[in-house]
Amino acid sequence: MVDVLGINGSPRKYGNTYKSLRIALMAVEYEGLDTELTNLVDLDIKPCLGCLCDEQKACRYPCVIDDDMKTLYDKVLKADVLIIATPIYWFSPSSVVKKFIDRLTALENMIFVDGKSWVEGKIAGVIAVGNDSGAISVISNLYATLVSMGFMIPPFAMAYYTGDKDVLQCESAILDAANVGRATVLLAKMLKKERWYVVDEVKEWLKTVMPKIKEELNMNKNKQFTGREPIISKLLR
Amino acid sequence: MVDVLGINGSPRKYGNTYKSLRIALMAVEYEGLDTELTNLVDLDIKPCLGCLCDEQKACRYPCVIDDDMKTLYDKVLKADVLIIATPIYWFSPSSVVKKFIDRLTALENMIFVDGKSWVEGKIAGVIAVGNDSGAISVISNLYATLVSMGFMIPPFAMAYYTGDKDVLQCESAILDAANVGRATVLLAKMLKKERWYVVDEVKEWLKTVMPKIKEELNMNKNKQFTGREPIISKLLR
Amino acid sequence: MVDVLGINGSPRKYGNTYKSLRIALMAVEYEGLDTELTNLVDLDIKPCLGCLCDEQKACRYPCVIDDDMKTLYDKVLKADVLIIATPIYWFSPSSVVKKFIDRLTALENMIFVDGKSWVEGKIAGVIAVGNDSGAISVISNLYATLVSMGFMIPPFAMAYYTGDKDVLQCESAILDAANVGRATVLLAKMLKKERWYVVDEVKEWLKTVMPKIKEELNMNKNKQFTGREPIISKLLR
Amino acid sequence: MVDVLGINGSPRKYGNTYKSLRIALMAVEYEGLDTELTNLVDLDIKPCLGCLCDEQKACRYPCVIDDDMKTLYDKVLKADVLIIATPIYWFSPSSVVKKFIDRLTALENMIFVDGKSWVEGKIAGVIAVGNDSGAISVISNLYATLVSMGFMIPPFAMAYYTGDKDVLQCESAILDAANVGRATVLLAKMLKKERWYVVDEVKEWLKTVMPKIKEELNMNKNKQFTGREPIISKLLR
Repeated sequence: MVDVLGINGSPRKYGNTYKSLRIALMAVEYEGLDTELTNLVDLDIKPCLGCLCDEQKACRYPCVIDDDMKTLYDKVLKADVLIIATPIYWFSPSSVVKKFIDRLTALENMIFVDGKSWVEGKIAGVIAVGNDSGAISVISNLYATLVSMGFMIPPFAMAYYTGDKDVLQCESAILDAANVGRATVLLAKMLKKERWYVVDEVKEWLKTVMPKIKEELNMNKNKQFTGREPIISKLLR
Repeated sequence: MVDVLGINGSPRKYGNTYKSLRIALMAVEYEGLDTELTNLVDLDIKPCLGCLCDEQKACRYPCVIDDDMKTLYDKVLKADVLIIATPIYWFSPSSVVKKFIDRLTALENMIFVDGKSWVEGKIAGVIAVGNDSGAISVISNLYATLVSMGFMIPPFAMAYYTGDKDVLQCESAILDAANVGRATVLLAKMLKKERWYVVDEVKEWLKTVMPKIKEELNMNKNKQFTGREPIISKLLR
Repeated sequence: MVDVLGINGSPRKYGNTYKSLRIALMAVEYEGLDTELTNLVDLDIKPCLGCLCDEQKACRYPCVIDDDMKTLYDKVLKADVLIIATPIYWFSPSSVVKKFIDRLTALENMIFVDGKSWVEGKIAGVIAVGNDSGAISVISNLYATLVSMGFMIPPFAMAYYTGDKDVLQCESAILDAANVGRATVLLAKMLKKERWYVVDEVKEWLKTVMPKIKEELNMNKNKQFTGREPIISKLLR
Repeated sequence: MVDVLGINGSPRKYGNTYKSLRIALMAVEYEGLDTELTNLVDLDIKPCLGCLCDEQKACRYPCVIDDDMKTLYDKVLKADVLIIATPIYWFSPSSVVKKFIDRLTALENMIFVDGKSWVEGKIAGVIAVGNDSGAISVISNLYATLVSMGFMIPPFAMAYYTGDKDVLQCESAILDAANVGRATVLLAKMLKKERWYVVDEVKEWLKTVMPKIKEELNMNKNKQFTGREPIISKLLR
């Protein structure tokens, strides 16, 4: 069984992106989990067609597009951990990584089909590598995307290198990469599968607390706005 | 004991940012944990002086600045969960939230003083509220910052509202806010304290795997570059 | 008369942020324009109170807060060019720069008071400096903010340095900083003041083109959707 | 001759992204310039191979990949203005827009081949449309990318819509879109072609100012550090 799926978004299987991902996956193996490394460059993955803009429920697993993403969906579904390694192209992931992300929507959007994102509760780490700045822009975007899909992010689950040397010569960068592997595994081992986003229970509960919060807000507004209001209204006269 | 610390970064204690945070904290209380809500607007917190640019180890707890951050550091240290709610001012957190974040460096930078970020392993959620776009820019930035400091982010630990109505009238937004509270608590309960970033063990292990990865890279380069090289070298003639 | 206003957002007037800004301003002076450098650390600037969330027209020049921003507003109004140099603190501008940006709203929001952003048509450049990654996150955020306020951005009007050496030793970084000064001046000289955002004329014109665009969209939809529709509707059966 | 090139990054030629772009281009035509709208979905454009990581000068016009980008390069080169309209997929541009951006590197990277970015001095505007948040993340990223390539951005050259209605019903959104067209044209008309980034002249000049800036920094450091140093050194004892 695949436990940790590594995604290489660089077209170069001998470059710093690939190297950093291999370090992370070897750290995973050292912790006793299985890994698989997928090179997106070898796959035929077509761009997302945006079906959900025509009709929300039209975007679902399996995706209407018949290409190599079919196999990759199944690998993602089986994996407990996803580690995405991307080169930094113009301060964002490479276009093949973007295609992969856009197509993942078919799993996330199951929330509208059967009530639950199919990647909910999985764990993710991100590695970004380039010759110039932009690492944090890449990582920020992928974090917001992944958490919004239902992934969780362990502490320090990021590694980046933006120099022009061999990353294997940069100790801090490979320590970071190894710790991406280690931290994602650590969390995967600790977690049982849980429901992270619930609707009905929360709706029920909201009914009981709404009166309380509204009362509190009125008090706050009365207290604080008394001071602000004369200044603002003076301006508007 | 404080379990969950809510940070309100809006100057208005009766607005949508405050409301969303209260919903999240009430969801936390419903799960049985204690909460405390801090309004940054009531505190005297001075801007970070950037001491670590003069000398890395100069930035440490306690911070050289003597102001209300002193008490807030202790609340952060005691909390298992931090929920930051910020208004969206120009596509980023309000300046008081930014001051709070910058000053947290004194806890994170302990990694250079005693080998460990003092917020490592804590859990964070983010709420961003405004009248216009920018929510994802705010959340992305705070996620990258928090994970880089050692926090972890549970699935769906984000809520945002960018309309101009009362957020309490927008069911999806308050469901999201409540689930921020719920998801952070869920994770806090599941986790024992762990070391998320380790150096010495990883260095030791790297020695054993380096030969293996280098051999593999050479093979990859030989195989893949054979095809790329003639095209590139032709260009450069 | 001040032509170019440089804003130093670093607390250290001898660090790499300051140095880069000085290089940019000296390049401006070389082109024959006057410059002024403001160190935000020396000013008493309070955080934005968010008045416009209470009432859109309440946020206006002069701001209700009486502090050193008063003088700075006038310098911004007189300047043709604004060059913001900020240290990179947690992948975003320092909190004092954020305060400055938030408070600029009083000039931008004049669009709701007298129909025109008071910074419309001014020119901006950005310099971001730190010991670690995040430069592009800072620059991206400030660009979106500044253009949204009505500033314009000349080609290459960005400079950054994220190394730990003296920036004056890094030729590419100081070339970039000098060109930030040069490019902003070049554009300032070329431009006459123009109205960049107009409402009434555009509304009038929209009336004439709406029928045309709707007809075209219908044709497109008929043509393209014919192919997509059977696939999508099959899914939903 | 093409003056303004509109790039539609949505797969749907009848959706809100396309509509907003059409509004912008019709505003351009109203100002008397020619326009052309390219639908990326109709073209065969392959992902960037990252040649410049193997060898900086290997990335150049014409790109080694032989596909529909060939024609598009020529349209970009001839255009004075580029307006990119993209759907918001996971808080960033669609993958086909990303492919287009990545492949533009062949024009920008001419700086290493003949000393000048081939898009230097062109003007750009950005339109981002989606059903959910993320518009500012998209715009921020594209602005940093475009300016870094040598494009310039006029005031208010952004439009976005993140609602789920027909954008043509949202007056503020179409006013913004029309003004993207108008502002880019306005600037195009005002500008003569200029060299925005120069190296040799700036290097020469730097020699003369370096002594001056170093003297000034020493004075600043002596003055300011006197106060900071005792506090910091106390900490380190």
